[in-house]
Amino acid sequence: MERIERRACFGGWQDVYRHHSAALDCSMQFALYLPPQIAETKVPVLYWLSGLTCNEQNFITKAGAQRYAAEHGVALVVPDTSPRGEDVADADSYDLGKGAGFYLNATEQPWLRHYRMHDYVAQELPALIESHFPVSDARAISGHSMGGHGALVLALKNPGRYRSVSAFSPIVAPSQVPWGEKAFTAYLGNDRAAWKQYDASELLKSATERLPLLIDQGDADEFLATQLRPELFEAAAAAAAYPITLRMQRGYDHSYYFVASFIGEHLAHHARALR
Amino acid sequence: MERIERRACFGGWQDVYRHHSAALDCSMQFALYLPPQIAETKVPVLYWLSGLTCNEQNFITKAGAQRYAAEHGVALVVPDTSPRGEDVADADSYDLGKGAGFYLNATEQPWLRHYRMHDYVAQELPALIESHFPVSDARAISGHSMGGHGALVLALKNPGRYRSVSAFSPIVAPSQVPWGEKAFTAYLGNDRAAWKQYDASELLKSATERLPLLIDQGDADEFLATQLRPELFEAAAAAAAYPITLRMQRGYDHSYYFVASFIGEHLAHHARALR
Repeated sequence: MERIERRACFGGWQDVYRHHSAALDCSMQFALYLPPQIAETKVPVLYWLSGLTCNEQNFITKAGAQRYAAEHGVALVVPDTSPRGEDVADADSYDLGKGAGFYLNATEQPWLRHYRMHDYVAQELPALIESHFPVSDARAISGHSMGGHGALVLALKNPGRYRSVSAFSPIVAPSQVPWGEKAFTAYLGNDRAAWKQYDASELLKSATERLPLLIDQGDADEFLATQLRPELFEAAAAAAAYPITLRMQRGYDHSYYFVASFIGEHLAHHARALR
Repeated sequence: MERIERRACFGGWQDVYRHHSAALDCSMQFALYLPPQIAETKVPVLYWLSGLTCNEQNFITKAGAQRYAAEHGVALVVPDTSPRGEDVADADSYDLGKGAGFYLNATEQPWLRHYRMHDYVAQELPALIESHFPVSDARAISGHSMGGHGALVLALKNPGRYRSVSAFSPIVAPSQVPWGEKAFTAYLGNDRAAWKQYDASELLKSATERLPLLIDQGDADEFLATQLRPELFEAAAAAAAYPITLRMQRGYDHSYYFVASFIGEHLAHHARALR
């Protein structure tokens, strides 16, 4: 593992690391924000999953989250959104292949060798972080759009692993919207039964724990009606008696200006659960 | 004037406009953040000048300033860093020509037709902003690197125009460092006497007003010893009996992570003066 960036930020350090991922069988980069409290104690970790086309840079340069992480004493871990490298399968579109890993373990060719983002984010990365840095095993998870899908799915699929979950503009029902149908068909095949294990609205039905769960969704989001459809998650949560907080934010779109505007409240949500 | 971006942000609006600049004789873009307080009252304006290679986007996407602008009820105006367009003279380097206007009025060929960023920022842009938007004529100015130079120079050259000034990692003595010598030779010619009107450390000598003046400088800034040299400004301020606050920030570099870490304190500095 090699540190390739280090920048002082809000009294802590915004770092970027490169390492070989066994789960993904390729070289990966992730960002790590270490708050000033690491001088005194081990800190809990918030994992942030980014959306389509992003890498580990978008969130750390645009969301302004470090300020709140420094206030609450929470580390931030920001992985890339897919495996990377010349020998990694790709597609000629922004919503499949590199930059579009959908936080699942692919079962279909040509994706199955490298596209195992679920295992990377849920298992390999926390093991790496917790063995190399002054952090505790208290974890929370959040994300945006495809990464909001990833955060909800990872939290619901891995009971005991996270203390809280949140999402901005998440793809809550990928089996029922174009982004998800395209990605799941490619990565998981045509059998829709196999899709359920990566569909947050389906996973709610069998959820065994109740995490603090916060979703913010802008009502001026250009993808709201076609790709995001938070009402499907809301209905599934009601049917499962899973308490959630879903906030429709007036005037906000799908951009990082929306994330920046509410990331402070998400950090507070997670900090309460991580204490 | 045409609005080309509008995004909800911290309860206000992050906009980008395109207009024809008479001073620069070309089409220009600027960013405007309108805080939520405009629903009730006219708000003061902080002008932000960006550094080499930047345009109107860098500050609004990376600095996280909107949160503080919304708290204090201050609008943010962020111009581009040079004239733009196919017929605008350029050079094959990042530190001269487009993206490197140095906030001066050029007197030499081939620059003198379009490179009049001083007049654009000090006069044309405020007149435009104050006639079209719900803002008052209370102005402050800040900037980063080349833009820190611009902020100091505009404040010192235009008494009565700004109520406060601040800078991150500014080029405080352009006549004495490579970036400034290269730019001033090209834009202003070989007569160094003409350079003094755009050199903050020179302008201090004849300053007739005393503005609240705050400078933050990272001590791990890769340009500190060669291009920035804050000690020259500190000495000039002492000689002129101009009170300044110059803070060396330990561990911080030249990046927007540094700006983001302290922009809240700069907004507070300006909000006090703008009240």
